[in-house]
Amino acid sequence: MCFLMQAAPSDHVICARWVVPVMPEGSVLDYHSVVVREGRIDAILPTRELGEAHQNLPKVELPNHLVTAGLINTHGHAAMTLLRGYADDLPLMDWLNNHIWPVEDRFVDEAFVFDGTSLAVAEMIASGTTCAADTYFFPDAVSQAMTENGFRGQVCIPVVQFPNAWAESEEQHLEKGLAFHDSVRDSSLITTALAPHAPYTVSDNGFSQVVKYSAELQIPIHLHLHETKGEVEAAVDDDGQRPFERMQRLGLLSSRLQTVHMTELTEGEIHTLADKGAHVAHCPESNMKLASGICPVHSLLEHGVNVALGTDGAASNNDLDLLGEARTAAFLTKVATGDATSVSAARALSMATINGARLLGLDDEIGSLEKGKSADIIAVDFTDIAFQPMHNPLSQLIYAANGTQVSYTWIAGRCVYQDGRNTSLDVSALKTRVESWQKKIQSKL
Amino acid sequence: MCFLMQAAPSDHVICARWVVPVMPEGSVLDYHSVVVREGRIDAILPTRELGEAHQNLPKVELPNHLVTAGLINTHGHAAMTLLRGYADDLPLMDWLNNHIWPVEDRFVDEAFVFDGTSLAVAEMIASGTTCAADTYFFPDAVSQAMTENGFRGQVCIPVVQFPNAWAESEEQHLEKGLAFHDSVRDSSLITTALAPHAPYTVSDNGFSQVVKYSAELQIPIHLHLHETKGEVEAAVDDDGQRPFERMQRLGLLSSRLQTVHMTELTEGEIHTLADKGAHVAHCPESNMKLASGICPVHSLLEHGVNVALGTDGAASNNDLDLLGEARTAAFLTKVATGDATSVSAARALSMATINGARLLGLDDEIGSLEKGKSADIIAVDFTDIAFQPMHNPLSQLIYAANGTQVSYTWIAGRCVYQDGRNTSLDVSALKTRVESWQKKIQSKL
Repeated sequence: MCFLMQAAPSDHVICARWVVPVMPEGSVLDYHSVVVREGRIDAILPTRELGEAHQNLPKVELPNHLVTAGLINTHGHAAMTLLRGYADDLPLMDWLNNHIWPVEDRFVDEAFVFDGTSLAVAEMIASGTTCAADTYFFPDAVSQAMTENGFRGQVCIPVVQFPNAWAESEEQHLEKGLAFHDSVRDSSLITTALAPHAPYTVSDNGFSQVVKYSAELQIPIHLHLHETKGEVEAAVDDDGQRPFERMQRLGLLSSRLQTVHMTELTEGEIHTLADKGAHVAHCPESNMKLASGICPVHSLLEHGVNVALGTDGAASNNDLDLLGEARTAAFLTKVATGDATSVSAARALSMATINGARLLGLDDEIGSLEKGKSADIIAVDFTDIAFQPMHNPLSQLIYAANGTQVSYTWIAGRCVYQDGRNTSLDVSALKTRVESWQKKIQSKL
Repeated sequence: MCFLMQAAPSDHVICARWVVPVMPEGSVLDYHSVVVREGRIDAILPTRELGEAHQNLPKVELPNHLVTAGLINTHGHAAMTLLRGYADDLPLMDWLNNHIWPVEDRFVDEAFVFDGTSLAVAEMIASGTTCAADTYFFPDAVSQAMTENGFRGQVCIPVVQFPNAWAESEEQHLEKGLAFHDSVRDSSLITTALAPHAPYTVSDNGFSQVVKYSAELQIPIHLHLHETKGEVEAAVDDDGQRPFERMQRLGLLSSRLQTVHMTELTEGEIHTLADKGAHVAHCPESNMKLASGICPVHSLLEHGVNVALGTDGAASNNDLDLLGEARTAAFLTKVATGDATSVSAARALSMATINGARLLGLDDEIGSLEKGKSADIIAVDFTDIAFQPMHNPLSQLIYAANGTQVSYTWIAGRCVYQDGRNTSLDVSALKTRVESWQKKIQSKL
C-alpha cells in the first residue's frame, strides 16, 4: 500500500509544518524537513532548501504536523498490560500482594509475556514511543516481542529473591539473565540492564552480584527505589537504615544506576545522586494513582540530576501514553512546588526524549533529531480543531495533545505506524490472543 | 448522509456493549440499549429484550462502545479557547495581568466571543461534553454560539468592577445581564447564573446586588473563590478577613452558590459549605498548570459537599477534555491524600456528570441515564488496542480513555457528533475564522 510499509528502512524526506529537534531545548523550526538515509538522520533543513540531492527521495508531506524525536519510556512492565484495569483504586501493597502478584503467580509464562509485551509495544508505537526500558520475567520473550515489531528497548534482567515461573533464586535469575544478555549482544535494537526489583525483595548478596556484573558487562542497573514513604519507614524500622543508604553502601550508586520512582528523598540523597551521576525515572501517573508520593523533580533538576519519564505498567496507569505522562509531569511538579514556571513544556519534552536517552546511556544514538542519530521520529497531527489556534506548537504538543494524535512513528528509519495503523504487527491477531488471556484470567479468579 | 444528522431529535435505540447509567454509582450494564423518544430517555433495557414496540425505531449499533451520560463541564471561559497556548508556564497573577488581560482588552468583542465559544463548543461536543457553565463577556454571543450548535449551557452574567468592552461598571454588567437573562428565559438549552468574577474584582455593593437578583430570579451565583493561597493572604492583609468570610457576611452562601477552585479551605469553611449546600467546581488541571493549589476534594466529599468538575478556560489547561479532567481529579486526590482508594473511577465519573448536574440545579433533567431525563448521551469507542483487555469498562473509561475516543454525542436526543465529525456545525468555516483571529492576535503584539 505504501513505500513506508516495507520491512527495511527506506531513504525518505519528512516535510513537516514544524520540526522540534529537542536539542537545543525549546527550538521550533517552521517548514523544515528531515532527510533520512540508511535509517539515520542525514540532514534537517528548511523545506525550501531541499535540492537536487533530495529530488529522488520519496517525500512524506505533513502539512499540519509537528515532527520530533521518538519518545522514550524509561520504566515499564509491558507484559502487565494484560492486567490493565484488573485491580484499580487500591494502595500499592494491597494491589501488589492481594491482586497483582497472585494473578501473576497463576498465569505468567513465556506466552503471557510475549503477548502482553506485543500489546504494550503496539500501544506505545501508536502513541509515539519508540524505545522503552522494560522489566519483567522471561526477558527473552520481551526481547522477541520488541524485535519482531521493530521496537527499540532496554530489556532488563529481573533479579528477585522469591521463586517465580522464570527462576527460583537470585542466582538463577542472574544465570538465566546473563545467558539472555549474551543472546542479544549483536542486536541493533535491544540493550540490556540488570534489574534487582527493589531493596525489599533482593538480598545484600543479590545486590553485590548485580554490582559485579554491571561493572563487568558495563550495563546499567535498573531499580525501584523509594517508591513510597512506607517502604522507607519499614526499612528504617527493620535495619535502621534508609534503602538509599543501603544501596550506597552496597556500591550501586554510579552513572550506570537508573533509579525508579524516588518519591522520598532527603537533600543529602539528592546531592549524592547528582555527585554520582545516577538517573531518575519519574513515573508521575503511577505515583498518583497508587498514592505513592511525589518525586521532587524540580529539586532534582536544579541539582543537575537527569530526570526522565516512565509510564510504569499499564496496570497502574492505565495507559502507556508518554505524551500524557509528560503533561502530568509538568502539571504535578508545578502544583507540588507552587511554581508555575517549573518544568516548562520544552523541559517536559526533554524529559520524555533526550533525558530518557541519557538514562539509558543511548544519547549518542537517540533522544533528539540530530544529524547522524538513528531516525527514531514521530509526527503529531495538529489538524483537529482541538489544536486551534496554533500560538505555540510546543505548548500544544505537551499541554493539549496526547498519544492519539500521533500519526507516524519511525524507528531506525522504518515506518512502524502510519495514519492510525500499526504497520509492523498484525493487530487483529494480537487482539484475539489478548481476548483469550482476558477470558482465562477472569474465569480462573 | 444519516438519519441522525437531522436538526430535530429523532426517536432511536442505542444498542451498546456497555451502558453506564451513572446512577447507581458504579453500575455497568452489559449488552443494554437506551431507547430515545422525543429527545428523552424512554427506557434502558437488555438489548435482547427489545420488543415489538421498538421494531420500527432506527438502531445505532455500538458493539465495542460504552454508552453513558453526557459530561458536564461546570467551569470554563469558552471564548478564551482563542488564547490556547498563548502564554504558558506562568504563575496565575503574572499570566492574568501581563498576558491574558492585555490581549483581552485589545481583542474581545462580540465576534471574538462568538467564534471562541463556537471553537470551544466544537471541541467539547467532540470530547463528550454536552453541557457547560460558561463565564465571559458578551453572554448573548456565548448563548448564541451554544444554541446554534445544539449545545446545552449555563451562560453566566459576568459582574466585575473594571470597565471592559461589554460593560463599564458593576451596575451596567447587571443591567445588561438581566436583559440577557430575559432574552433566554424560554430557551430549552440555556440557563443563566450571576457570575461576580472574584472577591478581589467585585465590590461589596456588587455582591449585594448579585445576592438580591439571585434570590429574586432564583438563579445560581457562580464565583471564583480561594483559587490560590496568595489570594486569601492578600485579602487578610487588606481587610483582615478571608474572602470566604466576606462572602458569608454578604449572604452568598446557599445551595445556589457555585464556588470555583477552592484550593484553600479550613475545616470550618468545609463545614459551612456542607451546611449551606453550596457546591464546588473543581478544576484540577488549571490548578496544577497555574500552580494554584490543590482542592481538598476528599474532605469535601466526606463532609457531603457536592464536588463537580471543570476544565477552566483552554488558556490554562490547555484542552477542554472532561474525561481527562476526571482522570486527573482522581489521580490528584489520591496522591494529595496518600489514599489510593479515594475518588474511585466510578466517583470520578459521578463528578463529571451527576454532580455537575446538581451544581447547575439540573439534576432532574441531565447528569445520568434515567427514564424521563433528557437524552444527553455519549458513546466511547473501545475498539482500539489501547483499551484491551477489558477487565473493567469503568476503569477503562476514566483511567485509559480520553475525549478522543468519544464517537457519538447526543444532546436532547439530537446527534451532534458522529464518527469523528461534528454534525451541528461547519468545522471548516470555523477553522478559517479561528486562523484569522490567530493572525490578528499575533500581528498586534
